[in-house]
Amino acid sequence: MSDPSKAASDLRIVLVGTQHPGNIGAAARAMKTMGLSKLVLVAPEKAPDRDTRAMAAGADDLVEAAPVFSTLAEAVADCRWVLGATARNRRIQLEPLHPREAARRAVAAAASGPVALVFGRERTGLTNEELQLCHAAVHIPSDPAFSSLNLAAAVQVLSYELRCALLGDADMPLAEARTPPPGEGAASHAELEGLFGQLADTLDQIDFHKGRAPDSAMRKLRRLYLRANLDSADVRLLRGVLADAQRMARLAAQADAGGKIG
Amino acid sequence: MSDPSKAASDLRIVLVGTQHPGNIGAAARAMKTMGLSKLVLVAPEKAPDRDTRAMAAGADDLVEAAPVFSTLAEAVADCRWVLGATARNRRIQLEPLHPREAARRAVAAAASGPVALVFGRERTGLTNEELQLCHAAVHIPSDPAFSSLNLAAAVQVLSYELRCALLGDADMPLAEARTPPPGEGAASHAELEGLFGQLADTLDQIDFHKGRAPDSAMRKLRRLYLRANLDSADVRLLRGVLADAQRMARLAAQADAGGKIG
Repeated sequence: MSDPSKAASDLRIVLVGTQHPGNIGAAARAMKTMGLSKLVLVAPEKAPDRDTRAMAAGADDLVEAAPVFSTLAEAVADCRWVLGATARNRRIQLEPLHPREAARRAVAAAASGPVALVFGRERTGLTNEELQLCHAAVHIPSDPAFSSLNLAAAVQVLSYELRCALLGDADMPLAEARTPPPGEGAASHAELEGLFGQLADTLDQIDFHKGRAPDSAMRKLRRLYLRANLDSADVRLLRGVLADAQRMARLAAQADAGGKIG
Repeated sequence: MSDPSKAASDLRIVLVGTQHPGNIGAAARAMKTMGLSKLVLVAPEKAPDRDTRAMAAGADDLVEAAPVFSTLAEAVADCRWVLGATARNRRIQLEPLHPREAARRAVAAAASGPVALVFGRERTGLTNEELQLCHAAVHIPSDPAFSSLNLAAAVQVLSYELRCALLGDADMPLAEARTPPPGEGAASHAELEGLFGQLADTLDQIDFHKGRAPDSAMRKLRRLYLRANLDSADVRLLRGVLADAQRMARLAAQADAGGKIG
């Protein structure tokens, strides 16, 4: 995997005609949490102000460094690939991509030059003319019954997908993330069999079976402990608990025997 | 593919100890854009107020319908699977899942009962005690250099992943490669807590601790059993074993007392 911060520097977030300066700050913050730093503004309705800084909450540097253009065409003039964020039911020519797919393509395209992800005005989005500058559209699959994703939220979701694509960690065979890697401290087969042997003895000694066939309970318990991916320390812990239960069973048996003798 | 709105109704977003009422509203809005409706509050620092409504921007219905509990344990008592959102460098015992994997597992688990996705306090997150109620942790892969994802942004990203998993429209082939999530009949939170309570009692009665602090062993045992994805029958089986160990401990104690008297 290549350096994500290098690739991130070729991913540009472009905000077109933003109406509320606070949203510029909130978008900058959303970007920065996901390791993106290139913010570009196109004809904001109001220049960044105190609201912008308040909402940026530490991402002011992105706003201060942001170039301001008067048209989208100028802002993306040097870009290899331009992706426009759209609401679901816009009548656009471009088939919108899923954010995940869009992010993968954006990261791939960024290997050969700047890539822009373009967000329109809070109320009205991008104009048809602006969308015609885009190579593809991306749509966040919000609930059609309540699709009022605000600008910063949309930037957050797409920046998150870009980061996942940059890190390349989202689609790794997640079996790996789920089960602890075999090796590191994982209990050996012999340790597990030692545990199961002691468990079977303990069940006998505490009179768990009470005449029932012992196999079925042991089978279920084996399965259960195998699922838990025990490490060596877990096995020692469980065997310690069993040892004390066995000690109690011996004391109880001695008392019982003593009672009978007396 | 089953009905996403049906499955969504078993996905619960739980906000613990939220400090700013505005964030409750912003979180509700983030959820609702992604088709989620079940919001639950645990001991918010301040009750929902005018700021909450302003930030909810049309998602007030979720806040109004939200039950308020005084502890997380109560809020998730009926849940089949509980997932805690954590910052990267928390020293937690649970290996955090990627949001994508966490969402897939949450949606799969929701087929057999309620699932909770738990978010902690703005500044300090979840306590260790609260994290111990979780079956798994989830971490949004923010940039370590600027990881100040706010509460609503975190809810937005995870709600988005839940919606993607519900719609099943991204990465379908990958989804099938996973190990089965907590299956049909997965033990409820209350069943698991019943097991852990009896386990703690048993450790006392068989004199497992021998003067050592009991917390560490119980924490390890909880983790181990949570990893095993116990179903209700497993819980009954383990409680049966514990009951017999407790019986032996009582017999041993009686014999001991009898011996002393005699």
